[in-house]
Amino acid sequence: MIKLQEFYFFLDMTGTFVFAISGATAARQRGLDLFGILVIAFTVACGGGIIRDLCIGSIPPAGLANWRYLLVSLFASGLAIGFFPIVQRMNRPVLFFDALGLSLFAVTGAQKSLAYGHNIQVAILLGVVTAVGGGVLRDVLLNRVPVILQKEIYALAALIASSIVVFGTFIPDVSTDFISIIALVICCSLRLLSLYYKWNLPNFIDSSKD
Amino acid sequence: MIKLQEFYFFLDMTGTFVFAISGATAARQRGLDLFGILVIAFTVACGGGIIRDLCIGSIPPAGLANWRYLLVSLFASGLAIGFFPIVQRMNRPVLFFDALGLSLFAVTGAQKSLAYGHNIQVAILLGVVTAVGGGVLRDVLLNRVPVILQKEIYALAALIASSIVVFGTFIPDVSTDFISIIALVICCSLRLLSLYYKWNLPNFIDSSKD
Amino acid sequence: MIKLQEFYFFLDMTGTFVFAISGATAARQRGLDLFGILVIAFTVACGGGIIRDLCIGSIPPAGLANWRYLLVSLFASGLAIGFFPIVQRMNRPVLFFDALGLSLFAVTGAQKSLAYGHNIQVAILLGVVTAVGGGVLRDVLLNRVPVILQKEIYALAALIASSIVVFGTFIPDVSTDFISIIALVICCSLRLLSLYYKWNLPNFIDSSKD
Repeated sequence: MIKLQEFYFFLDMTGTFVFAISGATAARQRGLDLFGILVIAFTVACGGGIIRDLCIGSIPPAGLANWRYLLVSLFASGLAIGFFPIVQRMNRPVLFFDALGLSLFAVTGAQKSLAYGHNIQVAILLGVVTAVGGGVLRDVLLNRVPVILQKEIYALAALIASSIVVFGTFIPDVSTDFISIIALVICCSLRLLSLYYKWNLPNFIDSSKD
Repeated sequence: MIKLQEFYFFLDMTGTFVFAISGATAARQRGLDLFGILVIAFTVACGGGIIRDLCIGSIPPAGLANWRYLLVSLFASGLAIGFFPIVQRMNRPVLFFDALGLSLFAVTGAQKSLAYGHNIQVAILLGVVTAVGGGVLRDVLLNRVPVILQKEIYALAALIASSIVVFGTFIPDVSTDFISIIALVICCSLRLLSLYYKWNLPNFIDSSKD
Repeated sequence: MIKLQEFYFFLDMTGTFVFAISGATAARQRGLDLFGILVIAFTVACGGGIIRDLCIGSIPPAGLANWRYLLVSLFASGLAIGFFPIVQRMNRPVLFFDALGLSLFAVTGAQKSLAYGHNIQVAILLGVVTAVGGGVLRDVLLNRVPVILQKEIYALAALIASSIVVFGTFIPDVSTDFISIIALVICCSLRLLSLYYKWNLPNFIDSSKD
């Protein structure tokens, strides 16, 4: 497992990249200018992590201090601008990588919160915030109700992943890496299955009229 | 006054509960799903306190670290989902408890900021932020202009309460508890009176056309 | 150059004032009440700096702790309410002072981040956040897509100013004050020229339909 660190790094950059692509695409569809597209791409990719870092006291936030995140966001914005028709046609792969990014950010968010000595509730909540915070900020900036609050199993998958990471630390003789991979696989599978079978959480629009 | 600590705790949970109910009800009316309702309920109940804790350097924010807030938000969301017609009919009691929550959050927000050694302006401003921040975040997430910026005496009542707490510390020989109760009563009365008599702060829609 | 500190202070207050005026005017046009106008004015003037201070670990944020910012915001709100026709007619001077405020906040934001020991990327990004963050928060609270993400050369000018400040520290034998004035002049000129000649960054609305 000597390659695990590199594997994580690859996944982290992948998650950043696909989140940035999704942000840049949404920003372009709303007619934002070059700078607006880059801001939204960077916000989706790094916004959740920045909120997490402020809450756990990791100053400055990694999303601001590490140039790799900015570079990946720039690259994703360039792709969304220069190769928009291809990006739009890549809808299926983007959804797959987005599910991977969601899973990874939930796992690393929970792990980083634990590493800073916070309790299990903080770690679980901030795992979810890391995974979905960027998407919520994107929708707030684009002036719409965050889509993850309305439909689809998205944040719930992140909640399950960060819970597995946190409660997995109580299981003796099992490595953190093993638990993380389990959490990644379950979260990613749940997200992809919910997309495929169109699973939604219940809402209460009809019954609220009585 | 041996029971005062318990009384505060009861009021704090009451404030959390009614704020969560108001958030869950608003989220349900907008057609959010199960997770969205819980997120909005938790945001209204804890959002203001989390912003305050970030600004005073109380890391991690109590709203994330203390399980009672999450549990109360979950309970309130359950009520808003399962007993929606009853919650809607309870409009008057909810407004009363909301006024109580507003008052209490303003008082405790100002007190916590002072306890962390910050100056009087920080304490007054963050008292108001604690009291109204959650409601502002709710309206931002639900994609509307925050209602407290548009009408009714709401934030002003919180401003008065946190000012009383802060300037009360300069009066010799008067206990903090006594000052806090004065601030609570005045803020809560002002809010309820403004609801009853439909007091509003002036706005300038007509005159802005000249 | 003994007067430079006073000059900076004058510019800082000027920037705060014009940003507060722009916020109060926008809030009044949306029909917010007295309190709402003050909140938006204060948010535009201090919001970017508060986010910067949270990210660099300057607790409490200067915008909350220094009474001058609040006083200037109050004064600007009073003007926007009492002398609205005059403020509207002052459109050209306001745009000029807004460009000055933008330039100054970008410069001081980058300088403060460097002074707290953060790296060049953090300083550049937070220079931009200081300059444009308040305007973004204003638009989010007023429920519209931030105008700076859609058109005009605004954030780009701030980016250039904060980059000059940061990279200028690597030039030997040149004082920080000199670099800051260069950055101020370039940013302010670029902003004013872009207003005059109606320069915009490209957006991609038409080409996105293919």
